[in-house]
Amino acid sequence: MILDEQLLREVITKRPSHSHKSTFGRVVLIGGNQQYGGAIIMSALATVNSGAGLTTVITDEKNHAPLHVHLPEVMVADWCDQATCLTAIQQADVVLIGPGLGTSAFSLGLLQTILEVQTKHQWLVIDGSALTLLAETKLSLPYPEHTVLTPHQMEWQRLSGISIAAQTDHSNQEKQNELGAITVVKSHQTTIYNKENIYYNQAGSAAMATGGTGDTLAGMITAFLAQFPKNDHTVAAAVYLHSLIGDHLAQTHYVVLPTLISQAIPQWMAHFCTE
Amino acid sequence: MILDEQLLREVITKRPSHSHKSTFGRVVLIGGNQQYGGAIIMSALATVNSGAGLTTVITDEKNHAPLHVHLPEVMVADWCDQATCLTAIQQADVVLIGPGLGTSAFSLGLLQTILEVQTKHQWLVIDGSALTLLAETKLSLPYPEHTVLTPHQMEWQRLSGISIAAQTDHSNQEKQNELGAITVVKSHQTTIYNKENIYYNQAGSAAMATGGTGDTLAGMITAFLAQFPKNDHTVAAAVYLHSLIGDHLAQTHYVVLPTLISQAIPQWMAHFCTE
Amino acid sequence: MILDEQLLREVITKRPSHSHKSTFGRVVLIGGNQQYGGAIIMSALATVNSGAGLTTVITDEKNHAPLHVHLPEVMVADWCDQATCLTAIQQADVVLIGPGLGTSAFSLGLLQTILEVQTKHQWLVIDGSALTLLAETKLSLPYPEHTVLTPHQMEWQRLSGISIAAQTDHSNQEKQNELGAITVVKSHQTTIYNKENIYYNQAGSAAMATGGTGDTLAGMITAFLAQFPKNDHTVAAAVYLHSLIGDHLAQTHYVVLPTLISQAIPQWMAHFCTE
Amino acid sequence: MILDEQLLREVITKRPSHSHKSTFGRVVLIGGNQQYGGAIIMSALATVNSGAGLTTVITDEKNHAPLHVHLPEVMVADWCDQATCLTAIQQADVVLIGPGLGTSAFSLGLLQTILEVQTKHQWLVIDGSALTLLAETKLSLPYPEHTVLTPHQMEWQRLSGISIAAQTDHSNQEKQNELGAITVVKSHQTTIYNKENIYYNQAGSAAMATGGTGDTLAGMITAFLAQFPKNDHTVAAAVYLHSLIGDHLAQTHYVVLPTLISQAIPQWMAHFCTE
Repeated sequence: MILDEQLLREVITKRPSHSHKSTFGRVVLIGGNQQYGGAIIMSALATVNSGAGLTTVITDEKNHAPLHVHLPEVMVADWCDQATCLTAIQQADVVLIGPGLGTSAFSLGLLQTILEVQTKHQWLVIDGSALTLLAETKLSLPYPEHTVLTPHQMEWQRLSGISIAAQTDHSNQEKQNELGAITVVKSHQTTIYNKENIYYNQAGSAAMATGGTGDTLAGMITAFLAQFPKNDHTVAAAVYLHSLIGDHLAQTHYVVLPTLISQAIPQWMAHFCTE
Repeated sequence: MILDEQLLREVITKRPSHSHKSTFGRVVLIGGNQQYGGAIIMSALATVNSGAGLTTVITDEKNHAPLHVHLPEVMVADWCDQATCLTAIQQADVVLIGPGLGTSAFSLGLLQTILEVQTKHQWLVIDGSALTLLAETKLSLPYPEHTVLTPHQMEWQRLSGISIAAQTDHSNQEKQNELGAITVVKSHQTTIYNKENIYYNQAGSAAMATGGTGDTLAGMITAFLAQFPKNDHTVAAAVYLHSLIGDHLAQTHYVVLPTLISQAIPQWMAHFCTE
Repeated sequence: MILDEQLLREVITKRPSHSHKSTFGRVVLIGGNQQYGGAIIMSALATVNSGAGLTTVITDEKNHAPLHVHLPEVMVADWCDQATCLTAIQQADVVLIGPGLGTSAFSLGLLQTILEVQTKHQWLVIDGSALTLLAETKLSLPYPEHTVLTPHQMEWQRLSGISIAAQTDHSNQEKQNELGAITVVKSHQTTIYNKENIYYNQAGSAAMATGGTGDTLAGMITAFLAQFPKNDHTVAAAVYLHSLIGDHLAQTHYVVLPTLISQAIPQWMAHFCTE
Repeated sequence: MILDEQLLREVITKRPSHSHKSTFGRVVLIGGNQQYGGAIIMSALATVNSGAGLTTVITDEKNHAPLHVHLPEVMVADWCDQATCLTAIQQADVVLIGPGLGTSAFSLGLLQTILEVQTKHQWLVIDGSALTLLAETKLSLPYPEHTVLTPHQMEWQRLSGISIAAQTDHSNQEKQNELGAITVVKSHQTTIYNKENIYYNQAGSAAMATGGTGDTLAGMITAFLAQFPKNDHTVAAAVYLHSLIGDHLAQTHYVVLPTLISQAIPQWMAHFCTE
């Protein structure tokens, strides 16, 4: 199907009045090493602005202060503090791993831990460096049906073994069926594969081709899964909204900074929210 | 009584022209450990934007830099620096303890100190982790009639021993009379108990169900007590304004970030200020 | 004289087209200890937004990061690094000392250094803690006619020995003549004394009675002296503009945060700028 | 030629729809010591807002946190970490060195490294302290035809040996031909020299005469070279847009802070973008 605004109206439903912050999900975001701390900050901005109930960011201690400047709304944990991290992870409804994670042995250790402790009640979103690690190590996903992969075309090549030129719907879908995870192949026209479903995103523009756009999308997908039904429809809605906001901003901005997209999310979600 | 705008007009009075910053109260905020620093930052944003005269934040040293980014208007003290903290606390008109405080032995030590040094001229607001500590330790309040408790329903269950299902006006009021402190029981419909008075808050919405909303409310209550008459009416006005701003923002925002509420406070207070 | 907009039009003149950043003065701001770092940040925001050409802030190293978040436009020096600080100070046209300086032996040492190295080509603005130190130590001013003091009434009592109740124009002017420095006595109605001149500020409101308002004024005075004729007229213009902006913001804000005043300065200066 | 809006329309072209972040260039910015960290932050703000695809900032570790507050969009590297820095530099399409670099032996070492590793496929922009170092050491440029120098008049005097009074088109052009690099001589009326071409910038105003304006320009030039044809036309377009935005802001701001210019870039680029 071709993504459209109708999907947003279906997914973004009115919040129940008898609710509290836990109603909208506990989210854990893991990433941001000494060099790429901005990536996990951008994911967190997207997650919180998309309405996740409670967000904890597990990252290098160096990133805590800038993160709290952007978002006093999140909790933080030093990714060297195993006990605190494990507690946060075990309480999570959705875990995102990858933005700015890096590909060191330490990063790999974190990914392995996540794959080991994931329960069948939890969803996992794998993005950025974590996809590269997954491709290199051939680690298997414990709950592929509760997993979302968000590779851009080059990362998908590494992960699937399909060269960019050979990435057709047929080959991608075949590989998705083998892997089992909902797969968001990002390009100038992002496509989402899940079993027999293919979602085509015709929104999005070259103004969004700048560092951090993918980190923002990963954060949005995570927050949508935390509050709305956990399925490919919800993932597709996050992808479409991300591009739709970008297109709107691109009318007046030559380059659309990812942080600008995140700022705009609450108002766009209100716009599409159905009674 | 049902909270309404008339209450705001009564409480938010025009500032006397012959005044200076001390006229509007000295406030000390205590909280924010290594993991939950954002909580005390959000309380501080609410306190300063609500008009407290002079605000000192006692928190983990790690939180000082992000706090000063958000608010160069506050003074800071490292919560390990006992002498400086004690001086600040002794000069305070109102002390808030709890947002992001944590429940470690160190956190408990801070709470015990506050309960020991409080004088009859000072008001105390107890929020967040400090309520959990209070429930666990059964510490007694030195001046309950100068104390405000702000539990959400689960914290109130821990503190009062009344299960959420059994939290009726009758049982809550009975317990409040026993404890003696003004008690703000937060839920999708917050209620305030003090002696024979019950204040019902019908404002507020599910868009506010996100991490930090309670920290913001605690900061507003603290600032209102610092400048306006120190009583349950003033506490109720802070509760109502917090929800009213949230409702207004929820018309255009699917999720209302707590920092957005704080930004809007000075303009809403001007709106309701009576000559 | 009573301060009015005409004074602003006289002082805020159009910048010469053949100019560069040095044309508008080199400024050094000294203050901000471990506890009061926000004060020097607020002074710096005022200084830069008021148009000083090049600004260096000498402060505790702890304050550098939050300062650079607020103002990448400034240069910083660790106040423990004597050589770097001395170089910056010697190149300055105007030096401000005091906001958040504290009253430790180290702070006093800094003040003594400034009073020792000041040359007759430099102006000095003394504010906040530095006034308290001056009152305690009776240090003498090397160039009083190139010095501005900005005490609030209590600081003026300490400095002048005149109790607040006895602070009349007559007594204040007499003491100013003795001290020799331009003296800005801050209260709900600030008055400026210099020789036979008295300037009355009838602007300003109780909405500005919050921590940081004085630090902001000190920064504005410093920047005005850096670019405009170095005299009491220019100091008075800064005082008046500060209050005028505050009054404007107070129409819509119950409390006017000092950082909001600083943000508004460039537009207000453009408004009053004469051809 | 006299710079005008037509040049902007020629240079700022519509982005190809089949593109990704690498399409718009990998940029490395080098500068920002312990004292002048704000300079490289301002360059980075200009670079990212001008549309560079992927930006890495190599700077003193002290500047990482404030940089990530301003721009989570950038990657960072500690300039003491040689291996990481070298990898980033080797992948860059355009390198900027100089803003806030300082003139220490360490700074010189960084400049020497850059001049040693530059390949013929890379462009180099040399600004600020790096120009002073270049003047002192007479280091030679490996690829002058792929180099841009951005001295203000005093830096140009040091570099060229031509005193400010003697800086005429004739003398400047002669020296440019000798050096071989595109030379942007900044003054109240900036002029760009390259072989037989001279570009006159009649835009810009004294409101821009404040610390950081040059750092911002250097960042814009770098981003323009990263995405548009690498030549003097593109450099000239960046210079003109910088002044044009400044002039527009100067209509309402007595002093135009450099960070304000950067914020406005995406919208101005959209305005001039041709189909």
